[in-house]
Amino acid sequence: MNKRVAVIGIGSSKFGRRNDVGIRELTWEAVREALIDAGLTQKDIQLNVIGSTAYRGTEIYPAPPASEYSGLVGKSPIRVEAACATGSAAAFTAINAVASGMADIVLAIGFDKMTEVDTSASLAIGGRGGNYLWEFHMYGTTFPTYYALYATRHMAVYGTTEEDMALASVKAHKYASLNEKAHLRNKVTVEEVLKSRPISWPIKLLDSSPISDGSSAAIFASEDAVRKLHAEPVWVKGIGYGSDTSSIASRGEWTGLKAAKDAAAMAYSSSHVSPTDVEYATVHDCFTIAEIMAYEDLGFAEKGKGAKLLRDGQTEKDGKVAVNLFGGLKAKGHPLGATGLAMIYEVVKQLREEAGPVQHSFKNYIGLTHNVGGTGHYAYVTVLGR
Amino acid sequence: MNKRVAVIGIGSSKFGRRNDVGIRELTWEAVREALIDAGLTQKDIQLNVIGSTAYRGTEIYPAPPASEYSGLVGKSPIRVEAACATGSAAAFTAINAVASGMADIVLAIGFDKMTEVDTSASLAIGGRGGNYLWEFHMYGTTFPTYYALYATRHMAVYGTTEEDMALASVKAHKYASLNEKAHLRNKVTVEEVLKSRPISWPIKLLDSSPISDGSSAAIFASEDAVRKLHAEPVWVKGIGYGSDTSSIASRGEWTGLKAAKDAAAMAYSSSHVSPTDVEYATVHDCFTIAEIMAYEDLGFAEKGKGAKLLRDGQTEKDGKVAVNLFGGLKAKGHPLGATGLAMIYEVVKQLREEAGPVQHSFKNYIGLTHNVGGTGHYAYVTVLGR
Repeated sequence: MNKRVAVIGIGSSKFGRRNDVGIRELTWEAVREALIDAGLTQKDIQLNVIGSTAYRGTEIYPAPPASEYSGLVGKSPIRVEAACATGSAAAFTAINAVASGMADIVLAIGFDKMTEVDTSASLAIGGRGGNYLWEFHMYGTTFPTYYALYATRHMAVYGTTEEDMALASVKAHKYASLNEKAHLRNKVTVEEVLKSRPISWPIKLLDSSPISDGSSAAIFASEDAVRKLHAEPVWVKGIGYGSDTSSIASRGEWTGLKAAKDAAAMAYSSSHVSPTDVEYATVHDCFTIAEIMAYEDLGFAEKGKGAKLLRDGQTEKDGKVAVNLFGGLKAKGHPLGATGLAMIYEVVKQLREEAGPVQHSFKNYIGLTHNVGGTGHYAYVTVLGR
Repeated sequence: MNKRVAVIGIGSSKFGRRNDVGIRELTWEAVREALIDAGLTQKDIQLNVIGSTAYRGTEIYPAPPASEYSGLVGKSPIRVEAACATGSAAAFTAINAVASGMADIVLAIGFDKMTEVDTSASLAIGGRGGNYLWEFHMYGTTFPTYYALYATRHMAVYGTTEEDMALASVKAHKYASLNEKAHLRNKVTVEEVLKSRPISWPIKLLDSSPISDGSSAAIFASEDAVRKLHAEPVWVKGIGYGSDTSSIASRGEWTGLKAAKDAAAMAYSSSHVSPTDVEYATVHDCFTIAEIMAYEDLGFAEKGKGAKLLRDGQTEKDGKVAVNLFGGLKAKGHPLGATGLAMIYEVVKQLREEAGPVQHSFKNYIGLTHNVGGTGHYAYVTVLGR
């Protein structure tokens, strides 16, 4: 990129079933926190990018009411969507707007209120985010089924087991229990995961992320603005994106996501960072198998060895590369539009050493986010550092 | 902006009731034309930004199928939406991605297939793009009514008449009759407009843009890429954006759009161009009154004198500032996601002197696009030049 871009403010709402708020109030929770964190007011924001899938609630054009309620009238010309990677798409758009010189201080907001529709409708909406006209319509393939196909393939080719996947759930719930903003704060055991209700074998209820409401926000700034504001920056060192066919039957492999590998390659190359440099990562664990695939797609483990990395505890706090110490999508929750910005929130918290009970110990202060949209239709990898 | 950005390829589908195609084929019509125009193939495209409101058809996540059908797998990580300004939001995102150094060659696609829902549903969707929870829900205010409120106010304060507005319709239909890609190619007279069915007085059927299907595309490139490709560039000289409250009752005035004035001020300032420099413009004439307001918001006429500019023929071909010589939203059609990029298509055609029967004569080769979203929720103004 032409200009350096920093994150200078972050905010996130409590995730969960948020019947207490509409999208306006929900969004404001994250925006308020991000503004306070940066020491700014709405007047300082030059451009506001909104990430929301407009999940089938009452508002089908949610950007104007949400931005207006947050006091951002005049600055909010755009909503972006990339299914479950929507929050990262908002960050990408905001980062480009700073790096292009279009604006010096840009706020990215991500939110969705998914519990406004019931669970079966939610599965159908998700299915339409897969491959609508063929795989969903003809076979009824919804997201748990897609990830069950990845899981069975990974089991068959690499010997990954249901117990391995359960470990990802145990880890997620353990860390979410320490995160006041997490949706699910109960701890679970391997036995509980294995005995939980099958959704689409081998995916069980406790292998699956919940349906959550939430919002997250990040303020991006140019080097000039960082200097003027005497801000404490976390720098965007590189960003990568990928996309792939929506049809899983047309993919070249079923044990990893090409979009994520492409995004990782671009992010590593643009940041001059290699997988072994990464000390903290938030990865897209919408289902437990997705966390194992992410380790491999990001190069933290060799192909087929993702489960071993997990079993060896190398992705725990103070492990070789700590992953999802805020509870992950699996337990912290996964409000589609918010997730990518929640990932940036977490990596920034870690890099600033403000993560309290889950603070990881850094040497080189390099972190990344890995956010997947659809069943691998979209992916973004963002490398951050101090 | 940090880097100069050029338009090096443009394409547009036939607009109209396109029951002959789905969104995949519809999108490809514009992409194919743009690639051929630029002398490129899909391999040359580094990033593809998709603008679509995902108008309530079968595909609620339309970006993956549309981009995949156009051969853009791997390059399509993002969909953007800004209601009726969606196409400009896609251009804005693409321009920033080039100017930031993220990519050298970026394709922006805009499309919507609005006739997949019936007209009454379409009005309701439009109304939800207004101010949903209050003005639409409580008063049933849909888009013709919003613009009827602007029109009556303009009539009361500035003496604008129904005949003045009819002139905008007559002009639009006259030029659309010369445009093979236009939705409505019949000529109309002032009398026919005045006698046409009232929709929401003083807005009549022939004051209103039709409900159209269509797609448009533009390829943006860095100066380096222009040089390497020996392309014939049209330069993006400046871009401005604005946004405003969705509640018309909360606006400060009802005879112009603050978002559009803000966008124009930013675009003029960033391009070092003044309103009198502009020789060709495409303006957002979703209803005839909107064209008259646009003249004033863009500074082509003094406040209250927009109708006079029209009456004096100064916005005709070879007038002081020619406007909408391809038929405008009013007669060419207004497929929401496509419109902003169709405007860029037209200005580029004019600046390249490829506009055939509607070619305007230029001295300084300065054109602009003016694209409004919602009832003034969003606006983009883009200044282009050779």
